[in-house]
Amino acid sequence: MSDALLLTPAVTRLIELALEEDLGRGDATTQAVVQPGARATAHLVARQRLTVAGLDVATAVFRHLDPSMAIDVQVADGAEAQTGTRVASYRGSATALLAGERTALNFLQRLSGIATLTRAFAAAAQGTGLRITDTRKTTPGFRLLEKYAVRMGGGSNHRFDLGSGVLIKDNHVALAGSVSEAVRRARGHVPHTLNIEVEVDTLAQLDEALAAGVAIVLLDNFGEADLVKAVARVRTVKPRPLVEVSGGVTLARIPELARAGVDLVSVGALTHSAPAVDLALDLEDPAGHAA
Amino acid sequence: MSDALLLTPAVTRLIELALEEDLGRGDATTQAVVQPGARATAHLVARQRLTVAGLDVATAVFRHLDPSMAIDVQVADGAEAQTGTRVASYRGSATALLAGERTALNFLQRLSGIATLTRAFAAAAQGTGLRITDTRKTTPGFRLLEKYAVRMGGGSNHRFDLGSGVLIKDNHVALAGSVSEAVRRARGHVPHTLNIEVEVDTLAQLDEALAAGVAIVLLDNFGEADLVKAVARVRTVKPRPLVEVSGGVTLARIPELARAGVDLVSVGALTHSAPAVDLALDLEDPAGHAA
Amino acid sequence: MSDALLLTPAVTRLIELALEEDLGRGDATTQAVVQPGARATAHLVARQRLTVAGLDVATAVFRHLDPSMAIDVQVADGAEAQTGTRVASYRGSATALLAGERTALNFLQRLSGIATLTRAFAAAAQGTGLRITDTRKTTPGFRLLEKYAVRMGGGSNHRFDLGSGVLIKDNHVALAGSVSEAVRRARGHVPHTLNIEVEVDTLAQLDEALAAGVAIVLLDNFGEADLVKAVARVRTVKPRPLVEVSGGVTLARIPELARAGVDLVSVGALTHSAPAVDLALDLEDPAGHAA
Amino acid sequence: MSDALLLTPAVTRLIELALEEDLGRGDATTQAVVQPGARATAHLVARQRLTVAGLDVATAVFRHLDPSMAIDVQVADGAEAQTGTRVASYRGSATALLAGERTALNFLQRLSGIATLTRAFAAAAQGTGLRITDTRKTTPGFRLLEKYAVRMGGGSNHRFDLGSGVLIKDNHVALAGSVSEAVRRARGHVPHTLNIEVEVDTLAQLDEALAAGVAIVLLDNFGEADLVKAVARVRTVKPRPLVEVSGGVTLARIPELARAGVDLVSVGALTHSAPAVDLALDLEDPAGHAA
Amino acid sequence: MSDALLLTPAVTRLIELALEEDLGRGDATTQAVVQPGARATAHLVARQRLTVAGLDVATAVFRHLDPSMAIDVQVADGAEAQTGTRVASYRGSATALLAGERTALNFLQRLSGIATLTRAFAAAAQGTGLRITDTRKTTPGFRLLEKYAVRMGGGSNHRFDLGSGVLIKDNHVALAGSVSEAVRRARGHVPHTLNIEVEVDTLAQLDEALAAGVAIVLLDNFGEADLVKAVARVRTVKPRPLVEVSGGVTLARIPELARAGVDLVSVGALTHSAPAVDLALDLEDPAGHAA
Amino acid sequence: MSDALLLTPAVTRLIELALEEDLGRGDATTQAVVQPGARATAHLVARQRLTVAGLDVATAVFRHLDPSMAIDVQVADGAEAQTGTRVASYRGSATALLAGERTALNFLQRLSGIATLTRAFAAAAQGTGLRITDTRKTTPGFRLLEKYAVRMGGGSNHRFDLGSGVLIKDNHVALAGSVSEAVRRARGHVPHTLNIEVEVDTLAQLDEALAAGVAIVLLDNFGEADLVKAVARVRTVKPRPLVEVSGGVTLARIPELARAGVDLVSVGALTHSAPAVDLALDLEDPAGHAA
Repeated sequence: MSDALLLTPAVTRLIELALEEDLGRGDATTQAVVQPGARATAHLVARQRLTVAGLDVATAVFRHLDPSMAIDVQVADGAEAQTGTRVASYRGSATALLAGERTALNFLQRLSGIATLTRAFAAAAQGTGLRITDTRKTTPGFRLLEKYAVRMGGGSNHRFDLGSGVLIKDNHVALAGSVSEAVRRARGHVPHTLNIEVEVDTLAQLDEALAAGVAIVLLDNFGEADLVKAVARVRTVKPRPLVEVSGGVTLARIPELARAGVDLVSVGALTHSAPAVDLALDLEDPAGHAA
Repeated sequence: MSDALLLTPAVTRLIELALEEDLGRGDATTQAVVQPGARATAHLVARQRLTVAGLDVATAVFRHLDPSMAIDVQVADGAEAQTGTRVASYRGSATALLAGERTALNFLQRLSGIATLTRAFAAAAQGTGLRITDTRKTTPGFRLLEKYAVRMGGGSNHRFDLGSGVLIKDNHVALAGSVSEAVRRARGHVPHTLNIEVEVDTLAQLDEALAAGVAIVLLDNFGEADLVKAVARVRTVKPRPLVEVSGGVTLARIPELARAGVDLVSVGALTHSAPAVDLALDLEDPAGHAA
Repeated sequence: MSDALLLTPAVTRLIELALEEDLGRGDATTQAVVQPGARATAHLVARQRLTVAGLDVATAVFRHLDPSMAIDVQVADGAEAQTGTRVASYRGSATALLAGERTALNFLQRLSGIATLTRAFAAAAQGTGLRITDTRKTTPGFRLLEKYAVRMGGGSNHRFDLGSGVLIKDNHVALAGSVSEAVRRARGHVPHTLNIEVEVDTLAQLDEALAAGVAIVLLDNFGEADLVKAVARVRTVKPRPLVEVSGGVTLARIPELARAGVDLVSVGALTHSAPAVDLALDLEDPAGHAA
Repeated sequence: MSDALLLTPAVTRLIELALEEDLGRGDATTQAVVQPGARATAHLVARQRLTVAGLDVATAVFRHLDPSMAIDVQVADGAEAQTGTRVASYRGSATALLAGERTALNFLQRLSGIATLTRAFAAAAQGTGLRITDTRKTTPGFRLLEKYAVRMGGGSNHRFDLGSGVLIKDNHVALAGSVSEAVRRARGHVPHTLNIEVEVDTLAQLDEALAAGVAIVLLDNFGEADLVKAVARVRTVKPRPLVEVSGGVTLARIPELARAGVDLVSVGALTHSAPAVDLALDLEDPAGHAA
Repeated sequence: MSDALLLTPAVTRLIELALEEDLGRGDATTQAVVQPGARATAHLVARQRLTVAGLDVATAVFRHLDPSMAIDVQVADGAEAQTGTRVASYRGSATALLAGERTALNFLQRLSGIATLTRAFAAAAQGTGLRITDTRKTTPGFRLLEKYAVRMGGGSNHRFDLGSGVLIKDNHVALAGSVSEAVRRARGHVPHTLNIEVEVDTLAQLDEALAAGVAIVLLDNFGEADLVKAVARVRTVKPRPLVEVSGGVTLARIPELARAGVDLVSVGALTHSAPAVDLALDLEDPAGHAA
Repeated sequence: MSDALLLTPAVTRLIELALEEDLGRGDATTQAVVQPGARATAHLVARQRLTVAGLDVATAVFRHLDPSMAIDVQVADGAEAQTGTRVASYRGSATALLAGERTALNFLQRLSGIATLTRAFAAAAQGTGLRITDTRKTTPGFRLLEKYAVRMGGGSNHRFDLGSGVLIKDNHVALAGSVSEAVRRARGHVPHTLNIEVEVDTLAQLDEALAAGVAIVLLDNFGEADLVKAVARVRTVKPRPLVEVSGGVTLARIPELARAGVDLVSVGALTHSAPAVDLALDLEDPAGHAA
């Protein structure tokens, strides 16, 4: 995604919520200890191997506090940084650097954590036809940012929201009466720009979905044997629907899914459980070394 | 925290961002498949052992979509649920239940994840004088909610923001010139209702901080041997300052810290890296069983 | 769309902007002339034949001013009202009724105007396979409401926004170099839940798009002869892509498009130029007759 | 209105709602197809004769996406453009141009449509003493913008909102008991900076209003004969009240109203039913010609 | 003003800013000390003689914290309370009462302070034709509330904002070239619903304004002798313009102004310098006596 | 406080509310009278001796209306200006200067009024150990700004909000049962970064508070004799708690409190009743003299 489209009004609102919650009553320590006009340089440094994501958000945080902050990016979003690598440098108001540090890092560590975890999954699928996708299991308010981080890690995006994709799940089927009825209703009402996807738990449900002519089937929590059978059945349909797999998929299982001929695997953990990566903001001391 | 004070205007704004991002263009599937007037009952069920946190947020999500949604809480915030336990039941518009499910779960799984991880740390410290506290390494925009989740898990809160606590770190010391000068400046400027805490990396810095008469020392990344020495030195001061420990502390190290006589340990991972817990919203089928 | 999903946080914000702009400094006339506690009944009456849309927005306007306003809807959204028909009745604070009247009507007259115009197009296509769809040429801030009004008038929705559909236009082709390259890039990057649609101006471009295997072709400003040729060529492709037509399509041309075998026609005028319909709010006089 | 006062906080909020609704989930097509760093030039071109209004809003839209967008205005707000005329040129990020195009055009086409329709009415009244004014029948949230567009078309503004003018209508009279009582109450309560205007439907009501000493009378839905009588009666009063006419007034009737000596005619259709004008954003191709 | 129109979206936003600033991080004391479910009754008591204003704002504050708070108003807005009088009683969550107390009182003490000071001025003018009006020297963000408080104290409102009244001041005259030119421009551009008022500093300027035919003259900082002359000159004009006086007018000077035949006196101090009145919220002790 | 931290998102929201309320419908007079492109210079001049506070807010107001306004500050926040002193000069759009004048002055006069009153108290305490502090009796929405103004006047800040300090008052004691129980609960629940302060009305309560080991005692409405006794008792405790005094303290009483050995006096009137100071914005005439 180009920068032009990442900092939407809603993302800006989220950044403002974050600034207000940490800095809404000032920074008691910094305002007492640091001279108002003091200037400083700080380096964003990777403390582990990671994939960077979120530098524009950090920029927005620091520029809110010091509009003339000078920023020099050395490792761009989507690139890998090794332990000890300088990712970016910031020069400006010392107060702005100290006061904004935690908010900037909180965004960066989360988004880079997601990119880093996605990178591991994407690497495991590299060279196969399998695409790693995210889910809607994102941090509330962070979906645009987290889906961006997934792309930075080499993953693909699933539907953005409930309005930009059709996914018929068990509850929908229960309320519609049957898979075919649910598909029929969807086909009559949703924009023609959207494909229709159906989640199935069993081979019998798969057959029903295929009979209804859906474009994508989502095999939820299928064991290896059933998965192989499912893909075989899908291959008998023309044009062949896409096969997506979900359900607590771990990194270890990626090769198996790729071998089975699955098209996409959606991994909720990419966004709901990626651990924060270790990034630090090191202040340069007067002699020019990072403190 | 009483409910009265959890859903502040800022938290409400965050919930609105979350609703807007998932539902701002409607729910293509549900609106096509489900009859507008259909009603349903859904049960929030724990799929693992966990400590609940965030039910009021889920209520706000569902009530936004259906103001007359009937809600029955069986396991309150702060209590433990076992695998399979019904935590709460929701009865109202089927559309509201299906459309709001993911947003409600995204809040609940994160907040309950934090409470659950905190509970593990708190249990390890139980019966000792050691308090488990959070940090400011929270999800941007979620600080009030996440600090609430920490309390629900049996932890204590560290300062809420940069305005409600004084913590002099290495960067402040570097810019002030010395620990004693930084403490002197803080004492002259910050509200008298705040204690002064100084972070130290070495025993030498500890001595300087103690000499400056601070109320709390934060021992950052101290090994076991130095930790014991540090606590011993602190005990020579009257009135004895509080001793806080930080720096990638794992669950395994809690007993050692308790034995060493540490007062508080602050654990960033409680909020920045707690994995989401497994909670599901099961729709009741017409025959009255959860689907 | 069910009510549950129409009044999103963004729509609520828009209603608040509207209330603030008309009532932010009070209602000088009403506050001077009407007794604060006076109560009244008012009837929403159609002054022309029209299709109703937007009653929930009117409700939100009046309930903002008088939370206990009693509202009785006689002609629901999506239904037709004849000249003189009572659409709904409101009973509550006279001040709220007088002060809220214009804001409520401004929403209702616009949304019902869109529904009414759409109904005319939908009627012309009735019984054919042709679907009438909207475009993104909506009033800024009103897209969710106006697309709802289109559905109330019997139309279908095209993509909601730039994130929920792929439509490759001439500018995209120019920047990508060719139709096939643009399609190739889109296929590699967009969520699999979205179909790919290409806008073409000539039969030659159509051939290129068909060769690229797109799911939908948009024939822009095609004359009748070329249109017939275009549909014939599309029919040679398996599976057959959908054919959408756009470009200043008037009501008179709908039968021709239906005969030609077009699947969808998108009409910008439904939202950008629908005239407001005539709806009034008549206050009941003390003797019980509408004034 | 000077630019300084057009982009108020509320108008900015409306622009943000518009950006969020079209771009809140990114631009799937552009982000897939266009290189992030690509630059382009686009020209805003009139596809019909029109009066321009809203260029500052378009600037705000594009600068939100690319703060360094270069903008060159050739036909300013309030001036006329002929078919094919370049109104303004934009040079900057190709992504910003493509992604912002529709939102910018949606504002421009509506506001220029209002200015263009107003220009036609103003031209018909030119050289007479008749002023063309708007009403409060504006698009909710757009009042400041639409009243600005009316001025750009040569019209005058009526009261901005319910707080900045007193207009006693039939409902107010009904609740006060009589015209004279309503006027008496208004005179006692409203700021002295506001004139008092009364809407009348009959000559009898006019007499009552004149007897009450109002500054302005609004003749609603008067036929030509009664209109002439009404103006004659008004002329007998010293100082002479202003005469305003309203009620579905068409362009054809303007000369008659001017001849009758009416001071002002308020036309709701200027804002509630002005058709969008045809304006396009043409991308310049690499060879320098508009595509 | 009726309640229906006081709590506009902007006022609600201001109340939310106030709640967030005091309660955005919880209430450390109350949450530690008070049982979450405890209930209590509190009485709002006047500690001095005062005129009440702002009860609806207090209600909004408490209901935000406890939607089911029971509220019983004994002395309504606009009425006088003596020292020791119970103005209103609140029963509900003890946490809500303690946490909301200061925010509610901060609004009430300011607004009642304005009403009380206005009452003193209004009493001095009672029985004369002199109206006491406010100015635009209000607390930023509080204008609607403070002008309401002025009305509650028996004063009249001057123009609400820069859009709802025309007041030509020295700076406007300087930029237009002369009083007559400024008046001419205003007459040609502003809505006909607004009167034109000119501020004058000298008798010569007054003559110029009268010659220009303005509806209202504002005599700024005129001494007693010149004031008498000014009113005499104004009386020679038909219809007689209104005479407003401003410029640091104290309570002591009101009788003189009334005698001089001035119509209005605008007093900035009503809103910019009214001291807060003493109002307290007394918690009832378990035995039923206010603590 | 450094500028970097004063204009938080919430303060910006407040400034926007202020701009919207005065300028949301334009400036009828200025737009009619002043040429859109006219430029002017204006000087902010003290009309009385005062301490300046709020220049950054005025800058934000004017820059909102004219982003390229040139601003030259001669007397910075926190410094004193004599009658007639130029505090700052503004050069830019004449419309922006005239339209923004009142909003900028409304902020400046209030904040400088607070700084000026605080300066008087601080001067009276100069050279003694007594600190002058504010309270939470601030204008709703203005707390950050008003506490900043107190510091500019030489005062100290008390707790910012209910989350950044613990102050046990009579109502808390009533609900907890006793001072010692309230202190016990607070100690167990509040962040360790906060001191515990107890408000006492009598010497008996003071003894109870001292016995509970609190860090700060607040003597509310103590007469001179009891005050002397109270300080004497506090001095017997090791480490000695801080002594704060409150309760309608006037300037005249400051020397007595200082002599008595009180540490802090909190004065609500600094923020709730400081009169606005006289500051004006004088437009320079074409010949270069302030008009």
